[in-house]
Amino acid sequence: MATIKNVAKKAGVSVATVSRVLNNKGYVHEDTRKLINEAIEELNYKPNEVARSLYKKKSRLIGLILPDIRNPFFPELSRGVEDEMQKHGFRLIIGNADEKLEKESDYIHTFKQNNVIGIISATNHRDLSHYDDLSLPVVLLDRTSDKHPSVSANGFDGGRQAAREIVRRGSKRVTLLKGPAELQAAQNRFKGAVEEMCTLNVNFNVMVTTSFAFDDAEKWAKKLFEEYPDTDGVIASNDVVAAAILHEAHRLGKSIPNDLQIIGFDDIPLSKLLFPPLSTIRQPAYEMGREAADLLIKLITNEKVQEKYIQMPVEFMERQTTRKAEENG
Amino acid sequence: MATIKNVAKKAGVSVATVSRVLNNKGYVHEDTRKLINEAIEELNYKPNEVARSLYKKKSRLIGLILPDIRNPFFPELSRGVEDEMQKHGFRLIIGNADEKLEKESDYIHTFKQNNVIGIISATNHRDLSHYDDLSLPVVLLDRTSDKHPSVSANGFDGGRQAAREIVRRGSKRVTLLKGPAELQAAQNRFKGAVEEMCTLNVNFNVMVTTSFAFDDAEKWAKKLFEEYPDTDGVIASNDVVAAAILHEAHRLGKSIPNDLQIIGFDDIPLSKLLFPPLSTIRQPAYEMGREAADLLIKLITNEKVQEKYIQMPVEFMERQTTRKAEENG
Repeated sequence: MATIKNVAKKAGVSVATVSRVLNNKGYVHEDTRKLINEAIEELNYKPNEVARSLYKKKSRLIGLILPDIRNPFFPELSRGVEDEMQKHGFRLIIGNADEKLEKESDYIHTFKQNNVIGIISATNHRDLSHYDDLSLPVVLLDRTSDKHPSVSANGFDGGRQAAREIVRRGSKRVTLLKGPAELQAAQNRFKGAVEEMCTLNVNFNVMVTTSFAFDDAEKWAKKLFEEYPDTDGVIASNDVVAAAILHEAHRLGKSIPNDLQIIGFDDIPLSKLLFPPLSTIRQPAYEMGREAADLLIKLITNEKVQEKYIQMPVEFMERQTTRKAEENG
Repeated sequence: MATIKNVAKKAGVSVATVSRVLNNKGYVHEDTRKLINEAIEELNYKPNEVARSLYKKKSRLIGLILPDIRNPFFPELSRGVEDEMQKHGFRLIIGNADEKLEKESDYIHTFKQNNVIGIISATNHRDLSHYDDLSLPVVLLDRTSDKHPSVSANGFDGGRQAAREIVRRGSKRVTLLKGPAELQAAQNRFKGAVEEMCTLNVNFNVMVTTSFAFDDAEKWAKKLFEEYPDTDGVIASNDVVAAAILHEAHRLGKSIPNDLQIIGFDDIPLSKLLFPPLSTIRQPAYEMGREAADLLIKLITNEKVQEKYIQMPVEFMERQTTRKAEENG
């Protein structure tokens, strides 16, 4: 790897002169500057960013906190953030908090120590105090708070849509799965579904769940049919849980969607590979990631921000775990 | 956040003395050292690691390169690495290369600039020249090379097992899906299956595929049944592709496993949620991640390494996309 000395030698100047050009400080003749820049390019010299970030207190490094990379929703978010950051010449490092507050704090500390210039966090913790004293821009992703700008999906509307669609397609004994209480996004979609069921004035059951993990999803699915064996419509807390319910329904010999309709939430890549393909409320994960990156870049570069709290629309993806709607439905 | 000045003030000593203790350099009286360490603890002072790593050329930071975080196999690997690293007080930053060599090189550069002290790479590129001149320990994960220590699963044996199991359970017209040519792990499992089919002296078809992506998996599944409509056994290139084949087989009205047996590879979390649950060759992803972390830590701390090329066993997970084996099978 080329060093500053190699650059100085090639350009026929002193290291101090190269340093002045790199840091854009002090006088350097235009011709000399040109020679140095050519040498930098030819040698593919990359200044040591740690040293530079200490000197200039500025890096191009962004930190991204994900709560659980095993949930297929988050890799999609992450790719959106990455692609947008890369387009603008920023570098991204990812920390997987594994739903643990301690791990999350540890990552934030690591980010800070390595002079990241901004953080995007898809944290699932209610308590955001560890973001308060960072003195650098923070954008929340897939959650909201009045303390930080954010990008989230309109989960409340998603819940309403799910309830509306399952009722107009004929389910009479709908069960709503309430997702983990500490996850704001899970509660928003649940509240939306409850409100719409109440507006439609139809009966429904609620079953409480406490996790989105693959391993627990099977447990919720079994419990659902034990507690509500005659349910004919399920609005699941997310697609992973919906997949487990679909699986269990098959095992019990139920015909989908005739005996039971299922609507998920997220539209993860596997959902359309299930059989039958899962009807679900789509969150635009990749686009949400890009929006968050865009918002953070604007905050970092002090550009004017039109909207600090971006809420993105969700969409019902009609597949085959729901029946066709009546035309006048 | 506490500064070195706060620590010096609390301990009643100069900043230089605190610095000597932090860097373990020069004489400091034992009592003074104790006072300083108490002040550090009470104030929860964390020295700026960038400055320290420049000074001591040493950080506790590890970089992990993942080829594609959307493939559910890699988040599992990653968690294994993380948990083991955390146990030993190292910090991990993740770079998602998105299967692009340029992104991967860029992450390695970022890691290097931020003074990581070791890299674990699950790269899927044949060319490893960008790892050669790093002058820091590199452990390859889910692939091998004679240039770097590695942790991988015995994919060749996995392919053999898959072939043996599908044949002894009665498939007569087996199709092998050959995974992307540039992925060593995909080729090993394919070669193992080919060798076993040859040993068993039974006919088989090979269909070439060029990607593991969710979006392409549907395409391979459709093509498979167009080209080999009467196939009665599929050894898929991984579980994502197996899921797509299972989906397409349902769509075509095939009865699983009676008309068609399917065996996947990986055992990703969704595999047991499919219907019927997918029989597959399990790679111990989490454990592979832990082993790689353990190996890297040993290299960093100059501990004795017993085995630089660790190959982990794989296992046939009998679920319901394969029939029961005859007792004498």
